[in-house]
Amino acid sequence: MKKWVPAASGLLAGFLAATVFFADLSPAQRSEASNDTNKSNAEKVYVPFGEKDEYYLFASGGHSGQMFIYGVPSMRHIRTVPVFSKDSATGYGWDTHSKEMLGDYTWGDLHHPAFSEKDGDYDGKYMFATDVGNSRAALMNLETFTVKDIINVPNTSGPHCAAFVTSNTEYMFLPTRFAVPIGREYASLDEYSEKYRGVMSAVTFDDKKEKLNIAYQVALPPWSYDLSDAGKKVSADWAVMTTYNTEEATTNLEINASQADRDYIVLFNWKELEKMIKDGQYDEVTGQKMIFPEKHKGGIYLVPVAKSPHGVDVTPDGKRFIASGKLAPAMTVFSFEKAFEAIKKEDFAGERNGIPVLKYESVMEKEVNPENALGPLHTQFDEKGMAYTTMFISSEIVKWDPNTGETLDRVPVQYSPGHSVAAEGDTVDPDGKYLIALNKIAKDSYLSVGPSHPESMQLIDLSGKKMEVIQSSPVNPEPHYAQMIKADKIKTISVYPKDENNPDAVYSQDQTKIVRKGNEVHVYGIAMRSKFIFDAKVERPDQIEVNEGDKVVIHLTNIDFDQDITHGFAINGYDLNIEVQPGQTNTIEFTADKAGTFPIYCTNFCSALHQEMTGYFLVKPKK
Amino acid sequence: MKKWVPAASGLLAGFLAATVFFADLSPAQRSEASNDTNKSNAEKVYVPFGEKDEYYLFASGGHSGQMFIYGVPSMRHIRTVPVFSKDSATGYGWDTHSKEMLGDYTWGDLHHPAFSEKDGDYDGKYMFATDVGNSRAALMNLETFTVKDIINVPNTSGPHCAAFVTSNTEYMFLPTRFAVPIGREYASLDEYSEKYRGVMSAVTFDDKKEKLNIAYQVALPPWSYDLSDAGKKVSADWAVMTTYNTEEATTNLEINASQADRDYIVLFNWKELEKMIKDGQYDEVTGQKMIFPEKHKGGIYLVPVAKSPHGVDVTPDGKRFIASGKLAPAMTVFSFEKAFEAIKKEDFAGERNGIPVLKYESVMEKEVNPENALGPLHTQFDEKGMAYTTMFISSEIVKWDPNTGETLDRVPVQYSPGHSVAAEGDTVDPDGKYLIALNKIAKDSYLSVGPSHPESMQLIDLSGKKMEVIQSSPVNPEPHYAQMIKADKIKTISVYPKDENNPDAVYSQDQTKIVRKGNEVHVYGIAMRSKFIFDAKVERPDQIEVNEGDKVVIHLTNIDFDQDITHGFAINGYDLNIEVQPGQTNTIEFTADKAGTFPIYCTNFCSALHQEMTGYFLVKPKK
Repeated sequence: MKKWVPAASGLLAGFLAATVFFADLSPAQRSEASNDTNKSNAEKVYVPFGEKDEYYLFASGGHSGQMFIYGVPSMRHIRTVPVFSKDSATGYGWDTHSKEMLGDYTWGDLHHPAFSEKDGDYDGKYMFATDVGNSRAALMNLETFTVKDIINVPNTSGPHCAAFVTSNTEYMFLPTRFAVPIGREYASLDEYSEKYRGVMSAVTFDDKKEKLNIAYQVALPPWSYDLSDAGKKVSADWAVMTTYNTEEATTNLEINASQADRDYIVLFNWKELEKMIKDGQYDEVTGQKMIFPEKHKGGIYLVPVAKSPHGVDVTPDGKRFIASGKLAPAMTVFSFEKAFEAIKKEDFAGERNGIPVLKYESVMEKEVNPENALGPLHTQFDEKGMAYTTMFISSEIVKWDPNTGETLDRVPVQYSPGHSVAAEGDTVDPDGKYLIALNKIAKDSYLSVGPSHPESMQLIDLSGKKMEVIQSSPVNPEPHYAQMIKADKIKTISVYPKDENNPDAVYSQDQTKIVRKGNEVHVYGIAMRSKFIFDAKVERPDQIEVNEGDKVVIHLTNIDFDQDITHGFAINGYDLNIEVQPGQTNTIEFTADKAGTFPIYCTNFCSALHQEMTGYFLVKPKK
Repeated sequence: MKKWVPAASGLLAGFLAATVFFADLSPAQRSEASNDTNKSNAEKVYVPFGEKDEYYLFASGGHSGQMFIYGVPSMRHIRTVPVFSKDSATGYGWDTHSKEMLGDYTWGDLHHPAFSEKDGDYDGKYMFATDVGNSRAALMNLETFTVKDIINVPNTSGPHCAAFVTSNTEYMFLPTRFAVPIGREYASLDEYSEKYRGVMSAVTFDDKKEKLNIAYQVALPPWSYDLSDAGKKVSADWAVMTTYNTEEATTNLEINASQADRDYIVLFNWKELEKMIKDGQYDEVTGQKMIFPEKHKGGIYLVPVAKSPHGVDVTPDGKRFIASGKLAPAMTVFSFEKAFEAIKKEDFAGERNGIPVLKYESVMEKEVNPENALGPLHTQFDEKGMAYTTMFISSEIVKWDPNTGETLDRVPVQYSPGHSVAAEGDTVDPDGKYLIALNKIAKDSYLSVGPSHPESMQLIDLSGKKMEVIQSSPVNPEPHYAQMIKADKIKTISVYPKDENNPDAVYSQDQTKIVRKGNEVHVYGIAMRSKFIFDAKVERPDQIEVNEGDKVVIHLTNIDFDQDITHGFAINGYDLNIEVQPGQTNTIEFTADKAGTFPIYCTNFCSALHQEMTGYFLVKPKK
């Protein structure tokens, strides 16, 4: 086997050297290096008022817990949509529905977003996302850009990345980044190999109910599972996932998880796993249907790969998958056809933890080694099937041909790109045109905001002969992955339709009421330009009076059926805020635990008399 | 008195008509109207990699609770700095210091940001901000872009806007937006005029300790106090604030607070108030030194103004202040000199709530009435002292000359501008060049993100003969005000210096330790590329093991003294995340209330081996 992976210590020195090298360039030199036709670049990214961006970019917000929505090519940040963390701007985490979805958790670490697909193409209907911080998955509706469901993923610790979705959104596969004992029980790290497992979850989606569901789980070996991708076309029944720490080290992974020359790609056939579940080939563990590969045989294989890989990416034609050791100078092209052939022939190099291991040479098609390129992390594709790989250590994007292995172009980015995203890049039919490098380090690219800098996204024009960085955009921490979709695929609604069957909704002043039930006060109110009406029949319709200790439930309907007229509802000093979008009914529940006088006001500027859109919440003290 | 204020009902109809008018224009028409030289506009706003923006824009984040930092002219969003709401991306609200600062509150409504000043000019050292949601004030240090202090403002309900700061940052004045009973006790709205008050707080700032302090309060009448400004130069000892609801209505303010033709501007001499406090001319109420104007006479005056004014703005030369009824078609220019003269002569039109009322005619210099302009909210100034007023209802910026009253130029903005901000616009020495309209309504300006749209900021080039909108930028909810400062005035640090006197900090591996004290576990650890070391002396230095129920205190120091190398620290499943910026020591405290196995990981991508920067938090179950 060719020993092309240098020792980790040498690579770290190389990484540091590369960082210093770029840091030493003057701004002018870097500008010249990356961008010598400012004039045309300015035109390329400018979207004048009255025109719209061509693509939406959905970028994971990392430990912000949220999703960032951008327009491309302008790279303007249009909206942050709250997903796993509370967001006071939208009342997310305060209103009853979102509070229930978030449960006991106050934050998340949103890693990998994936659009729903039909026939391997983004259909623009839903977005899925995972939470590494508190092990959850979420579903976002793209008519409203709001989260509809969040599930906890048991036995899993950091579902780092879905296998994106399969070609018709049959499944989203959630591998675990960290191995933990099944049931998450306490177990000493001395018992790591025996008691810890790397559980992967197969999640399905009911689009009628807008609910996620765990169909089954697979108890893989106690390794770290990193990135993954679903097969396409000929490989549509399959998926691939990278692993690291197959050494099963329990401390100082920086050194100890880089000992073996090879880690593995997990290659599995989800149709076969589905059949195993149907046939009862699983154990019931912690309430989940769990496949133990050493016992329930079939459907799962290991492919050796250069150590510590990050991304694994299936080509648009579904024929190949590309992976790389992240400390390596090379990309490896694997062939699904060769893998299928080897599996058919049972051409295995033994087993690991009860899973058959395919021979590297039997599946590998070619190794691609651009000169001095270092740290390949992730690959995207254009309309011709050409590959674009981010090089974290040498800070560049390398364009190459997966058919020939030829390096076609290289462009420096600033600095240390983790992932990149191409227009419709994860579909069977990418658009080319644009690639965005998601850079981890900005250094002095932008005005300084203190010791912690923003991350940086750079927009690369793919339409010319040479790749060209045409815009650099700072971004809040921290995009780990993104998808870019044609703007016209997303069909939003502009107001919520009336729902006469909703018992909480009131659509006219005379329906408003405040109802007391024992120690509970239920308010059925409306928000409209420019007043609140909680009970139209009383002297002060914009006042709510309760007793200290009462449970208060406020249902509020925005009866301005008019695009962009959102109202907020806050009670000063009571630490709560919710929003009602046009036509929407929203609910907030809380206990009136502080006696006194608390003004109510609209938090979302709505009209010339917005400042007057107020009322009072009065809490009579206990005697 | 000239009756130039039409009835509110007519104005509302006008507002609606104006909205419909703009909504009916096609995108192309609007584009042509506002922007006929796209090519040059693209160039004007494009900042190529290697160059930097010319100005920082600090925009209030409204009910997001945070501050948004932008670069101008690129209008790129560089960073969201958390202030009044938790922010998981930076661990703000989880680490001990920020958690203590936020106290019991989980969100805020950040309205008005103000830079510290020296001689009436921004000095680039600090930023102040107020919270309308939970009545607080905050101090941000601009070396690090982090909040250093937050205070609760008692007796006040929604300190809507500081009087910005006085010319040498002697005071920030916080008027209340909503009147409440002093001490916030329960009182029926039937007793509004007797028991409710509109308390203003005078806040001082200790730059050595980086602490805010309430020097004294003033119990003004139970009105709503809206915007304010400090005097400059000749008026440097004075400040002005707008009021509305001087009708003292207690319900349906949309109608009832627009009954009287006039509300007031409160004009006060803070040097005189300071002297009154020194002389003991106050009552001690709820632990505060409180001036009751009806009893402690002097220093405060009322100036009649067109009803329901929003902004009041002092000209750069300090000679005039400009205010407008927000439902009116006119701006009124008032003269400080005339006001001083009238005060000297005691030329009053009686008193209101014990405060002398100046005669409108004695203080007013001129009324300026641009044809068909409606809804003047706020005025900024350029280097020649020319005024730029936002017209909420007619959706435009009007440029005019405060000396002559002449209208110089008008430009439509999309849509409904609340405030605007000019480069160094609140100083004695504005720059001109750029004005940014903070528009409340975006409608279809950007790719749709559902029924609730972003707000919109538009950059206006002031350098040509005509004002020109050169960029439109979506923004998260919701900028209410902003200040724009020359980039070179802000001097950030790039790493935190070593602090050998900090008992929580450790700077080398051999200093790391885990110390048990009864039921408390204290960890003194380090974060470095690419590992955590909590106790270097044990077998697994990146493991923390505790017993269920233990109190855990983790001090973590980032020993990568290298620009932009921030580490995160999260425990999967334990719902916590903090960050340590380069050189920084940070602390998190929590109770280990769940037994089991919980991976620790770095949340902020820091190196090629970031994925390996992990450990385990093991919690032994109670027997």
